[in-house]
Amino acid sequence: MRDVSIIGVGMTPVGEHWDRSLRELALEAIRAALDDAGRSRVDALFVANAFGGETSRQEHLGALIADYVGLRGIEAARVEAEGASGGLAFRQAYLAVASGAVDFALVCGVEKMTDLVGSRRVGARSLALDGDYEGIQGATPAAMAGLLMRRYMHEYGVNLADFAGFSVNAHANGSRNPYAMYRNLLKPERFTRAPMVCDPVSLFDMAPDADGAAAVVLCSSDCAEDAVPRPIRIAGSAVATDALPLHDRADPLFLHAANLALGRAFEQANVEPNDVDVFELHDEFTVLSAMQLEAGGFAERGEGWKLAVNGKIGLEGELPISTFGGLKSRGHPVGATGVYQIVEVVLQLRGQAGDNQVGDARVGVTLGLGSLGATAVAHVLEGPER
Amino acid sequence: MRDVSIIGVGMTPVGEHWDRSLRELALEAIRAALDDAGRSRVDALFVANAFGGETSRQEHLGALIADYVGLRGIEAARVEAEGASGGLAFRQAYLAVASGAVDFALVCGVEKMTDLVGSRRVGARSLALDGDYEGIQGATPAAMAGLLMRRYMHEYGVNLADFAGFSVNAHANGSRNPYAMYRNLLKPERFTRAPMVCDPVSLFDMAPDADGAAAVVLCSSDCAEDAVPRPIRIAGSAVATDALPLHDRADPLFLHAANLALGRAFEQANVEPNDVDVFELHDEFTVLSAMQLEAGGFAERGEGWKLAVNGKIGLEGELPISTFGGLKSRGHPVGATGVYQIVEVVLQLRGQAGDNQVGDARVGVTLGLGSLGATAVAHVLEGPER
Repeated sequence: MRDVSIIGVGMTPVGEHWDRSLRELALEAIRAALDDAGRSRVDALFVANAFGGETSRQEHLGALIADYVGLRGIEAARVEAEGASGGLAFRQAYLAVASGAVDFALVCGVEKMTDLVGSRRVGARSLALDGDYEGIQGATPAAMAGLLMRRYMHEYGVNLADFAGFSVNAHANGSRNPYAMYRNLLKPERFTRAPMVCDPVSLFDMAPDADGAAAVVLCSSDCAEDAVPRPIRIAGSAVATDALPLHDRADPLFLHAANLALGRAFEQANVEPNDVDVFELHDEFTVLSAMQLEAGGFAERGEGWKLAVNGKIGLEGELPISTFGGLKSRGHPVGATGVYQIVEVVLQLRGQAGDNQVGDARVGVTLGLGSLGATAVAHVLEGPER
Repeated sequence: MRDVSIIGVGMTPVGEHWDRSLRELALEAIRAALDDAGRSRVDALFVANAFGGETSRQEHLGALIADYVGLRGIEAARVEAEGASGGLAFRQAYLAVASGAVDFALVCGVEKMTDLVGSRRVGARSLALDGDYEGIQGATPAAMAGLLMRRYMHEYGVNLADFAGFSVNAHANGSRNPYAMYRNLLKPERFTRAPMVCDPVSLFDMAPDADGAAAVVLCSSDCAEDAVPRPIRIAGSAVATDALPLHDRADPLFLHAANLALGRAFEQANVEPNDVDVFELHDEFTVLSAMQLEAGGFAERGEGWKLAVNGKIGLEGELPISTFGGLKSRGHPVGATGVYQIVEVVLQLRGQAGDNQVGDARVGVTLGLGSLGATAVAHVLEGPER
């Protein structure tokens, strides 16, 4: 199995890109990533996209984007698992290069959510829940997160205000990220007065649907050494699943798939939670952030929220998370989000994170979730000594 | 790079499964494949599905199916590229095992097309064309195939009746396949009297949309030797792309992606067209069959149709194709079709093809196409000496 590294990253700003199509967003991100890698050709493209059929009336994005970005002829595929799509496409590219079948692989996560509005967008989002048991009842991702959050608060005696730290931190970091969708600061007192979406999930508990594209170039670590000054090594890669519907999970308050995926990735990389310098988690809902910290062994069961309250998740804290604003402030272009996470960790490990730089970041972890943890994909990235 | 083999296959009959959902069809195929492999667990599942969001209101099929078939926790992903989805999911599983990251991988292609009818189904199918240039004009896959077929007939001086052999052969083979959707024989004189769908593409030129699921279990060839008596080796695997819209292709009458993919797979397997004993091609439209024979080097440009006229494609012919009825007679459950092709070639190479057996089949080739050749995925499979 070949060792694999990242040699190029690129992304578009996240926002409402009503003037540009899926392929145009993909082109901008891919051009940036190829430029960054100093390459014009790759052998394979893995596209992450969750809702292109519903929001843009466009499936079959692998061939479409390969051609549009000037790479006609190369291998291409689209990978989908809701919010985990980006991490999964990255995983396929990693496996392709690790196997030796592909030398240079490109990953592009791209999504346009904001062309659909209101119930039509919510309807599209709900296609990733269990249609026969959740979707058919009119359940939405936010509704399911509301059930989860209420149960979490009940079981662990937590108040709504205790989740504020996650969103406050995300906006503090996002405010300094020119690629972020919402760059406003968020005050804790505003958090508790936010309009309810699905009680107790409020507007400031959940990430905004967004448009955007991010891209990454991978190759074997041997090639990477010659290609760029600071290749970032993929030290761990793992995917795991859980029941898609919440009601079927052994313990809905424990992210079993995230626990499995992070555990495997940590083991492959030979790191422990203490070694992690940056953790880009899937902060689609604040309660999910708390639960991911618990699933990863960064906090005890029922205590993930305390890291936010105690300020440990800030850029200067023990475990910086959402360092470019996370899903909450940078925005959540669903299928692209996992690739944004990779791009952001790469920038951190290269020391190119600008105002958002975490000091001495050497080990970065990404965790992507599909449908509130039904799919979890974890990667451990390692930067060079600096 | 580890050598990889197939140790289990399974499938459901192809047809109109109005009484069963995507997950139920997948379960039947996966149970059969696991039983065939003598296993109850695998490490990863790759689901091929093209239109689940549109036809079943269900995305995120990786986690859903992994859980439903009793494999909760394993790695899972969904892969999509219209009719090439099945071959691509198989390719991802192959890469995962070849890399060493995954020991036992499962591929499941599953599709339910017939819950949608009329213009709604045609609308769904058209999402895999180029939405900005073809879909927006009301183009459908059959309409594009009509343009292609008319041009082919014009350029090469071919008549409608000259394509009959492809469908006659498919139905002759499908009539003996208990898993086939249409088991009626087709007479050449009926072919030319078929109702037009998109002139000159008639009802008997094109494959029927269908429901079904097929599954395959893969592992390293070393493990395979101990697992089953007749493992089938994956000797070549390749994917290539072309422009998605027909009008953008350098030469619309030449399947460039199929040519690239077959060429690479043949080279890896060290075989030539002459060595191929069974060729499961993507006979979604008769003109595509002719063009695939040309792209693979089985016929000169403009002469692919002659193999059908001369009877060379029958079970006893020089190059048996569509040996279980192909897309035309067995039916075309879009995302699942590529996995059916693999299953059928495996049965041929094991000598388990029953009434459809090709004598002394040792080298089998599958070719899947997405959107009339925008994505092409080719595999060369090798059976044991018999």
